[in-house]
Amino acid sequence: MSIGTDIGGTNTCTGVVDEDGRVLHSSKFTTADYPDAPSFADALADSVKELISGFRGEDVEWLGLGIGAPNGNQQTGAIEHAPNLRMEGIVPLVELMQSRLNMPVRLTNDANAAAVGEKLFGAARDLSDFIQITLGTGLGSGVFVDGKLVGGDSGLAGEIGHISVVPDGRYCGFGRRGSLENYCSATGIRRTYFEMLAQRGGPTALDHLPIGAISSKHVGDAAAEGDPICEAAMHFTGRLLGEALASVSLVTAPSAFILFGGPVQSGSVLVDTTRQYFEEHLIPTYKGKIKILVSGLKAGDAAILGAAALVANSGQ
Amino acid sequence: MSIGTDIGGTNTCTGVVDEDGRVLHSSKFTTADYPDAPSFADALADSVKELISGFRGEDVEWLGLGIGAPNGNQQTGAIEHAPNLRMEGIVPLVELMQSRLNMPVRLTNDANAAAVGEKLFGAARDLSDFIQITLGTGLGSGVFVDGKLVGGDSGLAGEIGHISVVPDGRYCGFGRRGSLENYCSATGIRRTYFEMLAQRGGPTALDHLPIGAISSKHVGDAAAEGDPICEAAMHFTGRLLGEALASVSLVTAPSAFILFGGPVQSGSVLVDTTRQYFEEHLIPTYKGKIKILVSGLKAGDAAILGAAALVANSGQ
Repeated sequence: MSIGTDIGGTNTCTGVVDEDGRVLHSSKFTTADYPDAPSFADALADSVKELISGFRGEDVEWLGLGIGAPNGNQQTGAIEHAPNLRMEGIVPLVELMQSRLNMPVRLTNDANAAAVGEKLFGAARDLSDFIQITLGTGLGSGVFVDGKLVGGDSGLAGEIGHISVVPDGRYCGFGRRGSLENYCSATGIRRTYFEMLAQRGGPTALDHLPIGAISSKHVGDAAAEGDPICEAAMHFTGRLLGEALASVSLVTAPSAFILFGGPVQSGSVLVDTTRQYFEEHLIPTYKGKIKILVSGLKAGDAAILGAAALVANSGQ
Repeated sequence: MSIGTDIGGTNTCTGVVDEDGRVLHSSKFTTADYPDAPSFADALADSVKELISGFRGEDVEWLGLGIGAPNGNQQTGAIEHAPNLRMEGIVPLVELMQSRLNMPVRLTNDANAAAVGEKLFGAARDLSDFIQITLGTGLGSGVFVDGKLVGGDSGLAGEIGHISVVPDGRYCGFGRRGSLENYCSATGIRRTYFEMLAQRGGPTALDHLPIGAISSKHVGDAAAEGDPICEAAMHFTGRLLGEALASVSLVTAPSAFILFGGPVQSGSVLVDTTRQYFEEHLIPTYKGKIKILVSGLKAGDAAILGAAALVANSGQ
């Protein structure tokens, strides 16, 4: 059995995973309760030890701890300048955890972890060349070529959320503008809803909600029920995503893109529109050869599964 | 020794390559003289046999024939719908040549062949993760991940000339608009020269030339000598190329892009500008980690070397 941890800006979730990719037990704590690397590592080690102690008396072989984290670098074993974590700079998390736990520890980017999980237990089980797209606060991705996750020279490959899609478009930090993730992510969908409101005025099905409470889930659910402004927002998101993935496909020619995350679950407008514009923008020799699939993983478990897979499948 | 063939829209060049990557003898014929696949295969087989006969009496082991061609698919061994060749549809060239020559035959895309040549004999000799960019009539590319050329699921990876860079931009066939190769290629530079003329009026150093005669080489050379309109054209090309490569880098995180082709040889404006905008548009975690290099291969030999390498190095 292996242990997987998903470090998010809000929660750090850890689970015990069996060889069939089932999460047997899990626990979580609030990431931001631990402001520096040593205190965070202590808290995570405590979580792991507690989960393991639940199996005392059983004959279990522990393969190790796999961790998915924002800006996690598989090559260096460190979290590098993650903008949405309190721990700043370079955090050598593999080293910190290995000194606290007597087992192998591996780290990767959270979106890469989801891609590894998808390859082992989800929709990519039979695929060698695919790209997993995670729509969350940002847009994360994991690129598989020839059956292997691509790390690249720096270990930081698969950051397609930052490709430029709208010249002089939305502001996105780093002094850059118009990146994909500022449009095609949960936060991007929220911003697009406001853009559609600006263009069309309203009313919309969400008029009763306070601005601060509106999420991509509200927009997606209202779109599924036919609200025209929310539908336009999801359609706009799918168009940009489809066009962008058609460009991305030209680098590694995958057999599929696999969409994962909350916005993908809200009705079919987003996925249908993505498929339509993707196919339309493919070059002729690619047409009909690349699928847009929806993840086969349970949302809550995916990142834990993928992280655990780092140690369960040492081939990755 | 091995034999490499570079099939271009104009000429088909074939050369004998030794194990150190030197082209010992070469010959060429006009591609368009042979309108269909069997007559073209006959002509190519004659070229190969003639080159081999020059070594009669010597103790030579012939490793095979490698071919680089537009839209050459390494997996199927066929040229698939190449827009600038007279042979139409799907041409099973490997099969056609194997039935005419008693040696192994392999085929790949012409830009992939250049990338393989660069890896074996050029600037990429010590690189595992790089992307070779060939600026010619179009913009071709070859993607290396973990020391291997990426074919992708369809064998057609590395078509980044078709990524979209200017929404509603220049017309580029296939009903698509604003693709990279319509800006950053020899033909793209020529079009940009006309755009700069439209914006600024002139005069330029090329005023004495007939419109039909103007090439990217004229524009590049005049830019190197300080003609402001030609300089603006090369600067515009470098800006778009630098920005596009910054986006492409996010997929596989290579250690370098290697620029190859005529426009790269004309003065330093293009390469300098590409470097500047590339670095400026990288995300912070990538900055300083990815080089823009110029090819180390001789222009005339590169594609032949790369094609020959397909059979010389069976690991590729």
